[in-house]
Amino acid sequence: MSELGNLTTMEVDALTDADGGLNLTDGHARLVLSPQQAAIVARIPEMFADASRRPFRDIEREAHATFLHALGQYSAPIGSGRILSCYSSTLATDIVARALPAGARIAVLHPTFDNIADLFITRGLRLVPFSEAELLDRDWPMPPVSAIVVTHPNNPTGLVTPEGHLRSLAEHAARHGQTVIVDASFRGQVGAAQYDTYAVVGAAGTDWIVIEDTGKLWPTHELKIGLLAYSERTRLPIGRAFSESLLSASPVVLQLVAALATDWIDGGYQRARALVDRNRAVVRDTVAEVGLRLADPASEISVARIELPANGPDSSLLYKDLLARGVHVLPCPPFHWADPAAGLRYIRVSLARPFAAVQVAAQRLAQSYLELSAAVAAPTR
Amino acid sequence: MSELGNLTTMEVDALTDADGGLNLTDGHARLVLSPQQAAIVARIPEMFADASRRPFRDIEREAHATFLHALGQYSAPIGSGRILSCYSSTLATDIVARALPAGARIAVLHPTFDNIADLFITRGLRLVPFSEAELLDRDWPMPPVSAIVVTHPNNPTGLVTPEGHLRSLAEHAARHGQTVIVDASFRGQVGAAQYDTYAVVGAAGTDWIVIEDTGKLWPTHELKIGLLAYSERTRLPIGRAFSESLLSASPVVLQLVAALATDWIDGGYQRARALVDRNRAVVRDTVAEVGLRLADPASEISVARIELPANGPDSSLLYKDLLARGVHVLPCPPFHWADPAAGLRYIRVSLARPFAAVQVAAQRLAQSYLELSAAVAAPTR
Repeated sequence: MSELGNLTTMEVDALTDADGGLNLTDGHARLVLSPQQAAIVARIPEMFADASRRPFRDIEREAHATFLHALGQYSAPIGSGRILSCYSSTLATDIVARALPAGARIAVLHPTFDNIADLFITRGLRLVPFSEAELLDRDWPMPPVSAIVVTHPNNPTGLVTPEGHLRSLAEHAARHGQTVIVDASFRGQVGAAQYDTYAVVGAAGTDWIVIEDTGKLWPTHELKIGLLAYSERTRLPIGRAFSESLLSASPVVLQLVAALATDWIDGGYQRARALVDRNRAVVRDTVAEVGLRLADPASEISVARIELPANGPDSSLLYKDLLARGVHVLPCPPFHWADPAAGLRYIRVSLARPFAAVQVAAQRLAQSYLELSAAVAAPTR
Repeated sequence: MSELGNLTTMEVDALTDADGGLNLTDGHARLVLSPQQAAIVARIPEMFADASRRPFRDIEREAHATFLHALGQYSAPIGSGRILSCYSSTLATDIVARALPAGARIAVLHPTFDNIADLFITRGLRLVPFSEAELLDRDWPMPPVSAIVVTHPNNPTGLVTPEGHLRSLAEHAARHGQTVIVDASFRGQVGAAQYDTYAVVGAAGTDWIVIEDTGKLWPTHELKIGLLAYSERTRLPIGRAFSESLLSASPVVLQLVAALATDWIDGGYQRARALVDRNRAVVRDTVAEVGLRLADPASEISVARIELPANGPDSSLLYKDLLARGVHVLPCPPFHWADPAAGLRYIRVSLARPFAAVQVAAQRLAQSYLELSAAVAAPTR
């Protein structure tokens, strides 16, 4: 499986494909701006001027409030100094990984985006996989696990941690002195994930860290912010780790985020959802013609997994065949970071793309699957 | 000395000062846009549209070529895939630190910005200080040192590594199987540092890594790129470390960099230099009135160190007194990462600020020094 590389490597290959292949790898929004978004982008030069006139702390605070309130996070510690603006959610995750004590045992949701596990491992932490079934059964990790990382909603499955489950986890963690870490990078796409997470973890009296991300919501060409928020009682050296990584995020990007968040609650969310829903439907219907189905039909995030039957070609094979057909998708073994073989039955496609791109990619995927299935069924012909 | 925190922590304090104090801490350009720069910023919405129309690899390649050629780096490996665009030079440094083998012994220039040393230490490397005097004497570190990190020009001293010295270092490293690492983040400000570094290290046949930065040149509110370039023979897992940190820099920022680099060689450099020179002169003349002088009068970078006599107040004391006067500067102990006490005789002020801010800050510094000197001379009164 190692020949696949990590997921980001495959995403970079797609992004830099000299032959102009279809890139359905990453979860970023690669879409035409809506008229409302285009009007906001047209104001960036003004935001530039404002960034010189207004104090940074005011711009940052306004961006935090506007973005987090747009996503239902009314109890986030705005203005407390405990929300750090990072260049990306990946950097926020790495800062958390650095602040955790080296050698600590950390439970991480499984499957999930491999980068999360990789960053923790690279910083010398010892990872324990924690399955979605265990989460749904409220079968929480016990000490010596000292922190539990939940991706909410999960990537690639779209699983939302229900509010009651998060409360149960937070109360469990408070009893056992564990830290609850929530990576909510895809939260903005899913209404059900927008209950007030900070109220839940705050009420339980546990140590908590929450990562938020603007990078998956809007087609802003990597002009984005990852937020790292943490509880007042947290004793980890997060501020120090942050200061090793950056001085500050861009006040221009913070203003852009505030403006797009305002649009998000003023119809932007519905417009984006309609597009992703339509794309999910065309993938579902196209692969159904060759007997395939979505693994997570209820998922609302901007990616979809397709389930591959055990007697047919696996996702590693399908991935490579699709590359030859000019389509970049992601085979799922790396998401199953503790058990890559379990990911061979899934392949992931991005939905935040123009409809035509998703439709063509789904058709080629279906065709590839058909031809590979014939070859698998009669390997000696 | 540890009570001072690291340099970035002090820079963050200045940036987020609620009372609106004068921030002369970081080396970033905090200036009004020139008319030429403002015209470029006005085109950002077009760059946004172009980022959707043009392939990312074309935009990135053009930005690399325009920026690196503007700084005289004609032999940089443009188009080879060995120049990685990062969110910042700090992130580029961290990627290098991660790619180096844990436990390796690395020589790092001393003094230099503490963040460079901190990032290497945090990744488990063993640091050996390497002084500017040793550099000027061509007294190169011997194995077991496996990599040598030179900041060129150095921050805070402005020392440029002369071309012949870099050649000597690269030939030494080639003989001993060492890697030469050049952090050229301040290169764009200093003509003497713009000889073709890539030609020099390439000719010597050594392993090399060069970090470049757009973040110190223009008042772009943290819209910037750090470049990480490396030699073809380098066997370190740099690509893997990069993929753990990010998918890609912003194609909007890459276009902005290309446009500003074009302006830089079309008069922008001279305009910026005139401003920094004027600010350096007002600092020099103002502190001279109280008997102080610049530590590095020949430095051309956008910061200046002021030397403090041994019988007067040190920079830790002066730093704290200036804070009370609403002026943020940097005491130099953290730059002397292996011997903080050696930095007590220096204090650093930023010059890429509006003239009035630099003038007022220099006046308050002079006044503070006078009053503290009187107190030091007669501590019992």
